Amino acid sequence: MFSRTLFPGRFQPVHNGHVAAIRWLLGVSEEVIVLVTAAQYSYTLENPFTAGERITMLRYALRDVWDRLYVVPLDNIPDNSLWLDYIEKRVPRFEAVCTGNPFVELLARAKGYEVLKPPLLDREKLQGRIIRRLISEGGEWESLVPEAVANYIKSIRGVERLRVLAATEYVVVNP
Amino acid sequence: MFSRTLFPGRFQPVHNGHVAAIRWLLGVSEEVIVLVTAAQYSYTLENPFTAGERITMLRYALRDVWDRLYVVPLDNIPDNSLWLDYIEKRVPRFEAVCTGNPFVELLARAKGYEVLKPPLLDREKLQGRIIRRLISEGGEWESLVPEAVANYIKSIRGVERLRVLAATEYVVVNP
Amino acid sequence: MFSRTLFPGRFQPVHNGHVAAIRWLLGVSEEVIVLVTAAQYSYTLENPFTAGERITMLRYALRDVWDRLYVVPLDNIPDNSLWLDYIEKRVPRFEAVCTGNPFVELLARAKGYEVLKPPLLDREKLQGRIIRRLISEGGEWESLVPEAVANYIKSIRGVERLRVLAATEYVVVNP
Amino acid sequence: MFSRTLFPGRFQPVHNGHVAAIRWLLGVSEEVIVLVTAAQYSYTLENPFTAGERITMLRYALRDVWDRLYVVPLDNIPDNSLWLDYIEKRVPRFEAVCTGNPFVELLARAKGYEVLKPPLLDREKLQGRIIRRLISEGGEWESLVPEAVANYIKSIRGVERLRVLAATEYVVVNP
Amino acid sequence: MFSRTLFPGRFQPVHNGHVAAIRWLLGVSEEVIVLVTAAQYSYTLENPFTAGERITMLRYALRDVWDRLYVVPLDNIPDNSLWLDYIEKRVPRFEAVCTGNPFVELLARAKGYEVLKPPLLDREKLQGRIIRRLISEGGEWESLVPEAVANYIKSIRGVERLRVLAATEYVVVNP
Amino acid sequence: MFSRTLFPGRFQPVHNGHVAAIRWLLGVSEEVIVLVTAAQYSYTLENPFTAGERITMLRYALRDVWDRLYVVPLDNIPDNSLWLDYIEKRVPRFEAVCTGNPFVELLARAKGYEVLKPPLLDREKLQGRIIRRLISEGGEWESLVPEAVANYIKSIRGVERLRVLAATEYVVVNP
Repeated sequence: MFSRTLFPGRFQPVHNGHVAAIRWLLGVSEEVIVLVTAAQYSYTLENPFTAGERITMLRYALRDVWDRLYVVPLDNIPDNSLWLDYIEKRVPRFEAVCTGNPFVELLARAKGYEVLKPPLLDREKLQGRIIRRLISEGGEWESLVPEAVANYIKSIRGVERLRVLAATEYVVVNP
Repeated sequence: MFSRTLFPGRFQPVHNGHVAAIRWLLGVSEEVIVLVTAAQYSYTLENPFTAGERITMLRYALRDVWDRLYVVPLDNIPDNSLWLDYIEKRVPRFEAVCTGNPFVELLARAKGYEVLKPPLLDREKLQGRIIRRLISEGGEWESLVPEAVANYIKSIRGVERLRVLAATEYVVVNP
Repeated sequence: MFSRTLFPGRFQPVHNGHVAAIRWLLGVSEEVIVLVTAAQYSYTLENPFTAGERITMLRYALRDVWDRLYVVPLDNIPDNSLWLDYIEKRVPRFEAVCTGNPFVELLARAKGYEVLKPPLLDREKLQGRIIRRLISEGGEWESLVPEAVANYIKSIRGVERLRVLAATEYVVVNP
Repeated sequence: MFSRTLFPGRFQPVHNGHVAAIRWLLGVSEEVIVLVTAAQYSYTLENPFTAGERITMLRYALRDVWDRLYVVPLDNIPDNSLWLDYIEKRVPRFEAVCTGNPFVELLARAKGYEVLKPPLLDREKLQGRIIRRLISEGGEWESLVPEAVANYIKSIRGVERLRVLAATEYVVVNP
Repeated sequence: MFSRTLFPGRFQPVHNGHVAAIRWLLGVSEEVIVLVTAAQYSYTLENPFTAGERITMLRYALRDVWDRLYVVPLDNIPDNSLWLDYIEKRVPRFEAVCTGNPFVELLARAKGYEVLKPPLLDREKLQGRIIRRLISEGGEWESLVPEAVANYIKSIRGVERLRVLAATEYVVVNP
Repeated sequence: MFSRTLFPGRFQPVHNGHVAAIRWLLGVSEEVIVLVTAAQYSYTLENPFTAGERITMLRYALRDVWDRLYVVPLDNIPDNSLWLDYIEKRVPRFEAVCTGNPFVELLARAKGYEVLKPPLLDREKLQGRIIRRLISEGGEWESLVPEAVANYIKSIRGVERLRVLAATEYVVVNP
């Protein structure tokens, strides 16, 4: 049993794969730091939701285990090699990193962290990129995220937002 | 009649479509804030001209109505959801946003602004991307921009600049 | 009863005044967003502890009510007028701001938030500035912070850190 | 007669000294670029007004000569030696700099610009720092700024803002 | 003979083409400033090595002529038109720029610098992009870089790093 | 004998104390990384010289041992706790840090570096702050810096620069 582990993700949006992984992780770690990365981006096709909206989704999805979570937004920085050093200054100490991403694994091992690989549910569908496309193209996406998250996305008009983003050739704000 | 409206664009370069839209807007708004976005970028294929050069083009194109304009450069910021808040701190108060871009429309409506759609002239040709390509590939572009703007672009060797940018595989300065 | 309120502070370090205010606030608000400001600063006399260390202190001090808290670090930005807009993108929606600071009150009222003033305990002593000085000068500070926080500060050699910071004429890293 | 000159200032707030200097400058220069510096700061004692508010003040004070002005906000940057290079990319070309500040004069001469010194009216009183203090302390400040500017400051509750800023020991947002 | 010239590059990694060019340049210039650009990026496919690792490679490759070199890392900035101004504040004065890149040549000539074109060795293979691909795909790359550089890359597990970067669909840290 | 050590400083300006310390350090370390900190600042009373000028001074002062030096400019960052992590990505690996500053010592020890204290020559006078004041007030400063550095400072009109900076009440560029 670990005392504390790090679970980084963009959560665009929070989906059933994230929730299953975090619940699994709570079986091997007393506390989990859920790191909401790319916090400075929103209203783009890759990052449609603000950090605040993503934290709200996590709250809806994980309310019953909130007592054991730290949910921390983090801006991306240009130097990947500095990323874990930067995280260490922003969150409580942790012993292991939970990730299925080989690049994050490389960075974590280089700093001596243990790496935990979450069980991957239905990896064909449970990916942010795929869910964002389903939302913007009118596909069936609701079953891929917790029900409360689906309702929340609709309540903030997230479906319309993704459709407009997908339909806009050039997003004025970023070059 | 509005007191003041916002007209955002990159103006890479200023073309007849911009000028027609702003003149049309001055028919429904006493004052217009012309927002020169992506001000921090220049000497790239997407953003070949500096903010100062773009302001100069606007001066050449709109000198007779300058008395009713605010011409304000604005850096792009990473968080699109913060974009209009950021603008509000940098320009005088405005009541409506004039844009043909569905994404800007979404952001503006979300903050309660009225949205005005400018009449689009010859949208096939009057687009920055198309004009930049015509310039770099030696096509006929002069008729698509005000004459004084065409002369200015030539005077600052803008044609050569675009040709070099188009011919450079890798722009060293940005990754 | 509010659904959600914002409680901003630097928490350098977390002291009994903070804890009492947050507990009081949980009597009038179902959830509280504890905003850890100036998150990008650390190892200065004004901001000796990292954001991660401050979150850890909050965990020690408020573990029993963690289920109702969002603890979110936030970098300071140069434009104060944009501060609340920036916060709104980074945290879940809130209805009121709890602050004893007249400047924060001004900003919050300007955006239409209700402002709650926390009961101030022993304001003579329960101030970060005073506690930091007591720590660096060898005074009695332990009784002013929760016991677990005092122990944590000692465990990370925070007393030595503050003494060195106070004794260093010029901190090389910042000008 | 110069074609175009640069007039930099913070305009916190716009006062009669600024207005007199710009009008004098329009006697020796066909166009004037009014550079609103420190644009990223607001709601501090040194920089109480946003860039947008300062542009609005300039509009009120100089509406009759707006046709000959460029009013451009500019963020401060850390490297002073790069300041004029940075300005050159953000505004139309200029031939001279109008300033009473010896430091700006030094920078301008180093880049080969001619330097014009504006006639200084009543320098005892016509300084931003002095006017800000008069506003915050309840002194007589209205006669030191154009009447329309005084009215505007009152309409945005600028007097209250300055009083609160002066009364706040610690501005939470900036360290 | 020039006193001092500038040689900019990303050096991802240092290869025989760089080394030949710098040695050639030392035949026409007493001192050379080797500018390591894009210094803030690392652990990406385009920029796998940190600035510190690139400086180390340059040391291994050019130790015998180090006495005549300045090796200076430089972050990329968004405004290309400001790039040379920025460089001028960060390195000693130089008279000419050595580059085979037409875009850098354009910028350098615009500021009045003489431009030197290095003799290009085997341009088919001696390109960073090609060498990075050879490394990540298991090709023969060692003969394209100085032997000491090849050994250094292996010693820091650079081959594994490039393979992981190439195999990672999405690099979490940057969007 | 160490292989490589780090010597951080602002070098505003390079003085005899710096030179003696670096020469002493070369007696116990084969190579020395001279880190020019606060590289992004210049033309202020605290940081009058650009990074490029400071590198030039180091060249004049240490030409005979340049073969064993890395001279690297580094911007200051807001988070002091991240400072050494940041340095590690920008310079070759080092084993020890040479500093007389207790704060830098604290940071270095926390990361496990050995700390070397340079012999302090005439600490009454050999301090940047004191030398800057002597320059700006017309005192005798030339004997406190290497002769070639004194000549260089005069050749770039550094004395006039410091006098103007000292005489300017408010430096427009920074707030």
